[in-house]
Amino acid sequence: MTDEQVKFLLTEREVPTDWVNLLVDLPGEPLPPLHPQTLEPAGPPDLTPIFPMGLIEQEVSGAPEIPIPEQVREAYKLWRPTPLFRARRLERELDTPAHIYYKYEGVSPPGSHKPNTAIAQAHENARAGVRRLVTETGAGQWGSALAFACSLFGLDCEVFMVGSSYDQKPYRRSMMQTWGATVHRSPSTLTGSGLAQQAHPTGSLGIAISEAVEVAAGREDTNYALGSVLNHVLLHQTIIGQEAAVQMEMAGEQPDVVVGCVGGGSNFAGLSFPFVRKVLRGETKMRFLAAEPSACPTLTRGAYRYDFGDTAGLTPLMAMYTLGHDFVPPPVHAGGLRYHGDAPMLCGLVRAGLVEARAYRQNETFAAAVRFARSEGIIPAPEPAHAIRAVIEEAEAAREAGEPRTILFGLCGHGHFDLGAYDAFLAGELEDPEFSEQDMDEALAALPHAPALA
Amino acid sequence: MTDEQVKFLLTEREVPTDWVNLLVDLPGEPLPPLHPQTLEPAGPPDLTPIFPMGLIEQEVSGAPEIPIPEQVREAYKLWRPTPLFRARRLERELDTPAHIYYKYEGVSPPGSHKPNTAIAQAHENARAGVRRLVTETGAGQWGSALAFACSLFGLDCEVFMVGSSYDQKPYRRSMMQTWGATVHRSPSTLTGSGLAQQAHPTGSLGIAISEAVEVAAGREDTNYALGSVLNHVLLHQTIIGQEAAVQMEMAGEQPDVVVGCVGGGSNFAGLSFPFVRKVLRGETKMRFLAAEPSACPTLTRGAYRYDFGDTAGLTPLMAMYTLGHDFVPPPVHAGGLRYHGDAPMLCGLVRAGLVEARAYRQNETFAAAVRFARSEGIIPAPEPAHAIRAVIEEAEAAREAGEPRTILFGLCGHGHFDLGAYDAFLAGELEDPEFSEQDMDEALAALPHAPALA
Repeated sequence: MTDEQVKFLLTEREVPTDWVNLLVDLPGEPLPPLHPQTLEPAGPPDLTPIFPMGLIEQEVSGAPEIPIPEQVREAYKLWRPTPLFRARRLERELDTPAHIYYKYEGVSPPGSHKPNTAIAQAHENARAGVRRLVTETGAGQWGSALAFACSLFGLDCEVFMVGSSYDQKPYRRSMMQTWGATVHRSPSTLTGSGLAQQAHPTGSLGIAISEAVEVAAGREDTNYALGSVLNHVLLHQTIIGQEAAVQMEMAGEQPDVVVGCVGGGSNFAGLSFPFVRKVLRGETKMRFLAAEPSACPTLTRGAYRYDFGDTAGLTPLMAMYTLGHDFVPPPVHAGGLRYHGDAPMLCGLVRAGLVEARAYRQNETFAAAVRFARSEGIIPAPEPAHAIRAVIEEAEAAREAGEPRTILFGLCGHGHFDLGAYDAFLAGELEDPEFSEQDMDEALAALPHAPALA
Repeated sequence: MTDEQVKFLLTEREVPTDWVNLLVDLPGEPLPPLHPQTLEPAGPPDLTPIFPMGLIEQEVSGAPEIPIPEQVREAYKLWRPTPLFRARRLERELDTPAHIYYKYEGVSPPGSHKPNTAIAQAHENARAGVRRLVTETGAGQWGSALAFACSLFGLDCEVFMVGSSYDQKPYRRSMMQTWGATVHRSPSTLTGSGLAQQAHPTGSLGIAISEAVEVAAGREDTNYALGSVLNHVLLHQTIIGQEAAVQMEMAGEQPDVVVGCVGGGSNFAGLSFPFVRKVLRGETKMRFLAAEPSACPTLTRGAYRYDFGDTAGLTPLMAMYTLGHDFVPPPVHAGGLRYHGDAPMLCGLVRAGLVEARAYRQNETFAAAVRFARSEGIIPAPEPAHAIRAVIEEAEAAREAGEPRTILFGLCGHGHFDLGAYDAFLAGELEDPEFSEQDMDEALAALPHAPALA
């Protein structure tokens, strides 16, 4: 065998012992969330009806590292550490001097990075004596991860699944049920929010969130769980970047640029934050590149404002780039990237110029995904296909400049449940929506009357 | 973290260097295949129209080990070595003193053990100057693996997919197309065999084989590829058991019993043959347990006779347990186990009493699969769910006997494309067919007039 190593593996004893809390390293003072009614800064007591205190403490913690509980590390061992690959076949295919590495999170049982936080949230809720977690899911990645995590910690799990996905993508529903979860088609008749929306039978993520939050707030033994955006969710995902840093050392390289796709921001943050900290502390230099869909260009075209996290306006307002909380993105297949806002921590880094954002069209991302699958084998989910599109751009730039470049990107999930989209792409029938000026005007007009941001 | 290790990993430098050829260790003289017309022993020249000489040499080789070509090992590195898991959560769930280990082949891009041979076959054909491989596929596992392998070796790939699967399971088709393969709905109008069967629009595996063999035999630059049964296919799969043997040593244990599911036999052989050799050579003692569906109970109820490998009677006759080459098993979801015969090498071991076979009903296997998913996380394909059913039986026997037992089984693929079957099971709507006495009578009456076997 040649010396062309393609996989860099860690043993389960090397699962990191702490999460990286970037909050303390961020430039400037963090902008507090605002209470949705009073518009005054919201504090921990506002969150106790739906989150356990352990997670609320993580949400606002000033500690630079937070220890990972033993039981969480035990559960992580079922699939972690995840492999780091050197994409040698893709490099040859692109005829580039760049070295391309990818951290593959698709080896988890639900097939994405989402269980990194689902496990941590299930554990913290179980420890607090909560008996049931309730959440919403669109295409099903987050709902699957929470169902899996609940099955490991003996919690009941209820998932409100957007009606159109429930009808069109039954296999993610079956997956959740196999792990013992109860899945409701949203809008349901189980909640006031659902009953009020029976005229919209296909549902929306906003309606599903409202249903889940309503159930969690109304039952003593039940909490809510969110799969992205919040500080504690990003925190849990930093296990990805910490492993990747060790694996890049095994490969004898350091990334020049770290690339990830962004929906709510937890995948991007998970891979990049451990590297971002080193840059913020002046220990090294590195670029960071966030890839998002042109159909939902939050970071590249959104306004930096206080806005609600959900469509119905039930959550605290957060300081972030936003297209407006009632913006409904076109139905691109990267369902995980169809979010009107982004994690406040990530938005702050974009605002500060540390993270560059680029938007890509649906067809060019699928072309990149097919190119990747035919060289590296793995069929990517549509979300990380955006990162692959950006990576190809970087690799081609390196070739044109005739210079080496070390690229690390996050392959945050496989596409086994997205092959209908590949089908449409290969048949030349995939739509290619873009965000219009009119969309932007409507988005800005709908922003809440919260304090403007500098 | 506790010392409860759950994963045993090898680096890619530890991918085995040779395949294990059990042919030379088998008890008695091998029974030669017979020419389908003359019923005389068939030799290598009978196979050259559809297979390259490199594979034919492997089919009949008397060497105890066969070196794995460098390019094949390079391709294996994309996902091999595969992990060995200790199923500690399942052990606790079963409250058993048994130690349960599983070798997980679902980490390959197509999601099963099949690419172990697809890669080797694609390489040998590319080396021989062949430009195109053609094959058949039922539910799509084998076709996916060959499409993936062809994409790595620059070969065109054509797959005849059974019509009913083509219509009902479009995602496996999309997967093959993503890797660049051309997929034909069978019966097609591209072959004489297909044209003759237009009255049976849902097709069958037998018809699809006939179409693929016809295309391969009729084109100079095109060969055929088979995913199981033949000696060289079993040979390529022995990489599984060799890795598992090293990993069991890392765990400090030796299996008391090795368990696998059996369709054509390549998964079972791949895991077990390196261990079987040690037993045949008197180096150790161990039990071997083959799990098959009650709906297609080849090893437990079939006759040991010469029979065709395919439904249409185009292939050489092989000495094997068979339910008759025109037996059409009920449509159980374990599509990979719906084969009327079994690999001659494996059948010889069953005949010699070295391998014990057990048959399980569809519903009890799905119950075992759900139990596994809720403790270990991974959702198994319906085929290895039969092995899990057998493992639970062994683990419960150990508990009742109050004695330790080390069980190793093959988890040969994930169930991401089988969630419709889980859905039916969880809804209590899964059929539970069994093989009847009448089936057996009809099967025996249809056997060809070949020499009987002692």
